[in-house]
Amino acid sequence: MNGTTAPDFPSNWGRWGDDDELGAVNLITDEARARGAAEARTGVTVSLARVTTPFPLTGGPMGATTASTTAVQTAMLFTGFGAPAMAEVMIVTTHHAEVTHLDGMSHWVAGGKVYPGVDVADSSGPTGVRHGAADVYADGIQTRGVLLDLAPGGRLDPGHPVTGADLDAAAAHGGFEVLPGDAIVVRGGWDRVNGSAEPEPGMTADAIRWMHDHGVAVYAGDIGDARPPLPDDVPGALHFLALGRLAIPLVDCAEPEALAAMCQRLGRWTFQLVIAVPRIAGTTGLPVNPIAVF
Amino acid sequence: MNGTTAPDFPSNWGRWGDDDELGAVNLITDEARARGAAEARTGVTVSLARVTTPFPLTGGPMGATTASTTAVQTAMLFTGFGAPAMAEVMIVTTHHAEVTHLDGMSHWVAGGKVYPGVDVADSSGPTGVRHGAADVYADGIQTRGVLLDLAPGGRLDPGHPVTGADLDAAAAHGGFEVLPGDAIVVRGGWDRVNGSAEPEPGMTADAIRWMHDHGVAVYAGDIGDARPPLPDDVPGALHFLALGRLAIPLVDCAEPEALAAMCQRLGRWTFQLVIAVPRIAGTTGLPVNPIAVF
Amino acid sequence: MNGTTAPDFPSNWGRWGDDDELGAVNLITDEARARGAAEARTGVTVSLARVTTPFPLTGGPMGATTASTTAVQTAMLFTGFGAPAMAEVMIVTTHHAEVTHLDGMSHWVAGGKVYPGVDVADSSGPTGVRHGAADVYADGIQTRGVLLDLAPGGRLDPGHPVTGADLDAAAAHGGFEVLPGDAIVVRGGWDRVNGSAEPEPGMTADAIRWMHDHGVAVYAGDIGDARPPLPDDVPGALHFLALGRLAIPLVDCAEPEALAAMCQRLGRWTFQLVIAVPRIAGTTGLPVNPIAVF
Amino acid sequence: MNGTTAPDFPSNWGRWGDDDELGAVNLITDEARARGAAEARTGVTVSLARVTTPFPLTGGPMGATTASTTAVQTAMLFTGFGAPAMAEVMIVTTHHAEVTHLDGMSHWVAGGKVYPGVDVADSSGPTGVRHGAADVYADGIQTRGVLLDLAPGGRLDPGHPVTGADLDAAAAHGGFEVLPGDAIVVRGGWDRVNGSAEPEPGMTADAIRWMHDHGVAVYAGDIGDARPPLPDDVPGALHFLALGRLAIPLVDCAEPEALAAMCQRLGRWTFQLVIAVPRIAGTTGLPVNPIAVF
Repeated sequence: MNGTTAPDFPSNWGRWGDDDELGAVNLITDEARARGAAEARTGVTVSLARVTTPFPLTGGPMGATTASTTAVQTAMLFTGFGAPAMAEVMIVTTHHAEVTHLDGMSHWVAGGKVYPGVDVADSSGPTGVRHGAADVYADGIQTRGVLLDLAPGGRLDPGHPVTGADLDAAAAHGGFEVLPGDAIVVRGGWDRVNGSAEPEPGMTADAIRWMHDHGVAVYAGDIGDARPPLPDDVPGALHFLALGRLAIPLVDCAEPEALAAMCQRLGRWTFQLVIAVPRIAGTTGLPVNPIAVF
Repeated sequence: MNGTTAPDFPSNWGRWGDDDELGAVNLITDEARARGAAEARTGVTVSLARVTTPFPLTGGPMGATTASTTAVQTAMLFTGFGAPAMAEVMIVTTHHAEVTHLDGMSHWVAGGKVYPGVDVADSSGPTGVRHGAADVYADGIQTRGVLLDLAPGGRLDPGHPVTGADLDAAAAHGGFEVLPGDAIVVRGGWDRVNGSAEPEPGMTADAIRWMHDHGVAVYAGDIGDARPPLPDDVPGALHFLALGRLAIPLVDCAEPEALAAMCQRLGRWTFQLVIAVPRIAGTTGLPVNPIAVF
Repeated sequence: MNGTTAPDFPSNWGRWGDDDELGAVNLITDEARARGAAEARTGVTVSLARVTTPFPLTGGPMGATTASTTAVQTAMLFTGFGAPAMAEVMIVTTHHAEVTHLDGMSHWVAGGKVYPGVDVADSSGPTGVRHGAADVYADGIQTRGVLLDLAPGGRLDPGHPVTGADLDAAAAHGGFEVLPGDAIVVRGGWDRVNGSAEPEPGMTADAIRWMHDHGVAVYAGDIGDARPPLPDDVPGALHFLALGRLAIPLVDCAEPEALAAMCQRLGRWTFQLVIAVPRIAGTTGLPVNPIAVF
Repeated sequence: MNGTTAPDFPSNWGRWGDDDELGAVNLITDEARARGAAEARTGVTVSLARVTTPFPLTGGPMGATTASTTAVQTAMLFTGFGAPAMAEVMIVTTHHAEVTHLDGMSHWVAGGKVYPGVDVADSSGPTGVRHGAADVYADGIQTRGVLLDLAPGGRLDPGHPVTGADLDAAAAHGGFEVLPGDAIVVRGGWDRVNGSAEPEPGMTADAIRWMHDHGVAVYAGDIGDARPPLPDDVPGALHFLALGRLAIPLVDCAEPEALAAMCQRLGRWTFQLVIAVPRIAGTTGLPVNPIAVF
């Protein structure tokens, strides 16, 4: 298999028209939507977002000399003497592993084009994104979510190549079938930020094909692209194939630990999933906090 | 009535303990939560967030000489020659009328203290917020939302003082009763950013007292504090009393037009409301996109 | 003449070695340096920088709805309750016409290479500049400066193509000869930011050739590249040829009005010029405030 | 001596009028200016600014997990496909020990007022500085500079309290007298950023009184306020007394190592000093690169 062209791999380019910006979210039909709504029963919620602790932008003699790098920096603003309000400014580097974020179609470029075939120079410019921005999902994504826990109570082996068979086993463990229009949440038990020097597991082209076969509408998870790349597989398969080829938006750097604990406690691996990016126009990605409702 | 002290006005300081950070969100009991979940039927979603169009941070000979000011600025990043990904950095001034945002408890200071009585110097410092940050709601707020449309199909008169009677009338129009733990969405048909020179309507102390009497857990709306302040009322009543006294988090600068249209179309003024701020720690507020699910 | 390749135009690539980062500043010999020092007599100073008025990053109900775009934005920081110090954070878009700035060699790319032949991918990356950064001049540029006032007391005609003959005339007016290692300050009386819709004058390839013939080490001025481009000339000649081909660093968007007034008052068109960029490493340009000492 | 009020310490508040913004820079008379100019002979320059290496604002899978904190962050901008120019945006936290910067009068507040008695609420607001901004020096400061090397070829003892006698000894070592209107450069051989856990030396109230007695116009140096504060002295004497009381602008976090080497080599401890802050209006401080010309 050729990592650059992957000629035999399925593609959704053109499947929903030449101007489409939603990609696989089109798979969320009325039926899928209602299936998601039906999962909301007690109304108990769990967040799929990791905690992002900003680095404070301050100076002065007491400033730290080193700091964890993070997706967000904040500066507490001076609002006036005796002002009744406190406020801050935030600087956000969205595509940073420290923040759970949604990758829009414009984030990925293949052969000089973005989904579904728009020249990248038409999609993106110095002033922002004109096609495939992340806020095309700002009306809210609501569908059934399912947890595919690849290592219940533990974590995947270092460098583990996640395959379709792994995903099948996880679905069987949860007692559900993945249906077209579902959002999958993949848990491997890996913290992608503060990891050790061990090789990180990653999604294989085989797993992405499985996603295609099952009609997955959205991907979220703590397993992304393996580092280092997996031998004998498409490098960066999740971004290259799932986002770039199948037009499945990615909730990158999600944190499914609390979700896994809740599923385990309730004995229930399906839920209503609501994904609402901030309605900020013209970007390649946005911080997001997907909420599972039980 | 004394705008600074409003001594007779009810207060929730201490109601949920001396360390509480959630405020009126504590009113979302299991019963309220389930009532919210029960509203999700078809799974159709509507966003309550206004569109925020960033101002691009660029230079060069072609730069514009004036621009709309906005809550967000973006700079498209150089990701490398031939890089497969596009990305940007965002600068966000959260408490700006151009972006729908959630005000946390730490945003408001009364008499040198923030809810429920923490000295502001303990709550906030140059490096960020330590008590009452907006991300205390990052596990997700899920409850029943109700639309209180004060001017169906139109807009409130300039300078209109919104009272409890107005809210009663809107609930009657929608055919529902506001119950403890509900989130209210108030629509007055006013765009708070690009308004004319006309006086803006605003919530009165009477309306805030009504919110208290009905056990409102969250406020969202396009009506905030009147500008100029209303004669014979507490200045800035929504922030001063609802946020500062009753500890009701505010979804400030919401945009309920699409919601009102959907309610009208479905003949249904209640819905599941899911509010998920990005999980960014230690800030006084965060951009948010509340989603109504029908 | 071919705007893209300008094959007959002189080039300084290689003149000072394959690793050089200083370009024409190498022309400032000991003799030129001493000539500059000799100009300092009374010690009276004049700034060649335009005033940059930052746009304040604030939110709140009182925020303006439009603003002049500018190279710098500032946010006054909260430094603590009762803190003895006030401070701010600045966001600087260096290559903006609102700020006087120095263009380093890495700012300009010709045929995929930067001076003196370094592949742009070796010169610049997502994390900054590795060759030809603006701070290579941070030890200070000190030489003789000369004012070439093209329109004493007035301004150039709209769209005027500045030629070598114009520069000769200005030198004659000032009663000096331009010598190798001099820095020239060109004044046309045009404000490049808030101009009208009139065509802006610009430097022609002929003028750039004149700069080469006279051994100009640094360029500063209020005349840059004509907008729209001049017919029958190399488009963007100042950047393309002076910076890109001759490796003359540009003090872009300078403001020579006060200098011209001083020269007129003193009857003296030469001076010591001291240029000191902030010592910030790894950028393509930096704000700068060149000082003329008389 | 009372650290807060220091009642017996001299003050320059009112000395140059109630509206003055320049402070001790007023001491640079025509005579002092000419004395500075006379120092420029060969035109050789030395920078007094430390190297500030920005932290790059990037995301992506390869991002570092920790970094040195620094005054400046940069993001290389996407300028377009095939664009001939490279550019970046910079975020600057001016009052950070990693960047040599000038403290303006508005930086320091004493008893709710800034020099020469302006209420801080009139001097500073959420949108910036209105009195005593750093750019009041943007026309350029030019005077004689003198190096007071407190530890030639080495460094001061940890926690050393720098007194007037120390400054006298350094002047004697350099063979010069400090005259009214001079700028002093103090070198103690301490790197204030990456220091060890040892106590840092600092300027005492006695040294600041010496500065007053000698008519010092500007201070620059690698010695600031001792950390921890010196016993039996005014805490933060340099900022509290020199900046706050005597209105001497401070070039904070200067780096005089190269200057000391040059002085040693030339056997000459006096020079022309040119200080030119970027002409950015309305801030409490600005990065600066003072240049010594020999």
